[in-house]
Amino acid sequence: MSKLVLVRHGQSIWNLENKFTGWTDVDLTRVGVIEAKKAGLLLKENGYSFDVAFTSVLKRANKTLDYILEEMQLDIPVIKTYKLNERHYGALQGLNKKETALKYGKEQVYLWRRSYKTRPPLLTKEDSRAPKNDVLYKNIHEKDLPLGESLEDTVYRVLPYYQNTIVPYLKDHKNVLLVAHGNSLRALIKYLEDLNEQEIVSVEIPTGKPLCYELDDNLKIRKKYFIGEKHD
Amino acid sequence: MSKLVLVRHGQSIWNLENKFTGWTDVDLTRVGVIEAKKAGLLLKENGYSFDVAFTSVLKRANKTLDYILEEMQLDIPVIKTYKLNERHYGALQGLNKKETALKYGKEQVYLWRRSYKTRPPLLTKEDSRAPKNDVLYKNIHEKDLPLGESLEDTVYRVLPYYQNTIVPYLKDHKNVLLVAHGNSLRALIKYLEDLNEQEIVSVEIPTGKPLCYELDDNLKIRKKYFIGEKHD
Repeated sequence: MSKLVLVRHGQSIWNLENKFTGWTDVDLTRVGVIEAKKAGLLLKENGYSFDVAFTSVLKRANKTLDYILEEMQLDIPVIKTYKLNERHYGALQGLNKKETALKYGKEQVYLWRRSYKTRPPLLTKEDSRAPKNDVLYKNIHEKDLPLGESLEDTVYRVLPYYQNTIVPYLKDHKNVLLVAHGNSLRALIKYLEDLNEQEIVSVEIPTGKPLCYELDDNLKIRKKYFIGEKHD
Repeated sequence: MSKLVLVRHGQSIWNLENKFTGWTDVDLTRVGVIEAKKAGLLLKENGYSFDVAFTSVLKRANKTLDYILEEMQLDIPVIKTYKLNERHYGALQGLNKKETALKYGKEQVYLWRRSYKTRPPLLTKEDSRAPKNDVLYKNIHEKDLPLGESLEDTVYRVLPYYQNTIVPYLKDHKNVLLVAHGNSLRALIKYLEDLNEQEIVSVEIPTGKPLCYELDDNLKIRKKYFIGEKHD
């Protein structure tokens, strides 16, 4: 038996400003910091521990993980990979969601945000927002770097990483903490829970609320639950 | 138009220990502190301000309010009253909920917790837990101090206070912040939303999540919503 706990990063500055974020490397807000600390306290309060942690290369997820480990007083290996980055939002990155809806129509924006296969307008390779022009990705081959992704594209990025790199830890009965983003977590949950394309787009993952999957030796789900505060 | 914002205090030590709390004056846990700060940040982030704040005389609510005002950098009059205290849980106070269920049966405990009119076993007047033996209530007439309350009793305590003391502020177009407890807030919400006895016992109020009522000049609800973080 092993545990896989997923945490979605807390509120970021662009969440607050209602902009399409994607791979833009924006920081947490103070609310986001609070959400991260609370996640750590809840994990500690409920007696959780981990052998290894995975996260994206984006600082809103990295910092969320740092605050969690700090609150848990846990010192474990942290593996960062762009494979767990948020869905790349292409040329929409940096645009205000409301303004975009006014310009392109609500239906189009809804498709960009909530359909499984629709890609956003792609970046050109020359665009300063293109990952290949970002030092964070200087060691990644250009063909692996997206210029805009559908949720399906994100699944094809996240899933092989999960299977090749994370699954071996779980098979070895290690407990794994994974801190990532709304859509990279959706990609993983689609696979874990065997959801279809329609089902996964309607899954909303709350921020800073640890979601625990207890997995059996065949990595089938034995139990799934949110690790929450106790109240009456 | 005026706004009445309700906040339920964050996690307390006895929430965590799964004990009946009632009027026992237990402190917040670290998670509870985090929840309080987050409530304050959310109110600030969303541009709220208040003219006056009301709370119980119990420190888990008082401290929640203090953290909220601190995060909002708001210096307003704070009115504390036992009328907004949690429902008094009588002789159940201090007992573990699981042990109580084993001793009295799940059905009985369910009735104590979730029926509208069922009182818990009452305290004797000599019991050290009786409010009249607590310095916090030394200026309150003994006949006004409960030895155990049903939710109905709590309604009869909270409602006159709301009508006599809080309503005048709202009629005067003041914005009011009220930080209290699961059942004293239920009592108020029952009145505000005109819920019947069955409806109110099934209302669950989340902790640390500000709930805003926008009231018209007749104090009828124009809008009701949770003030939450922005995420996509």
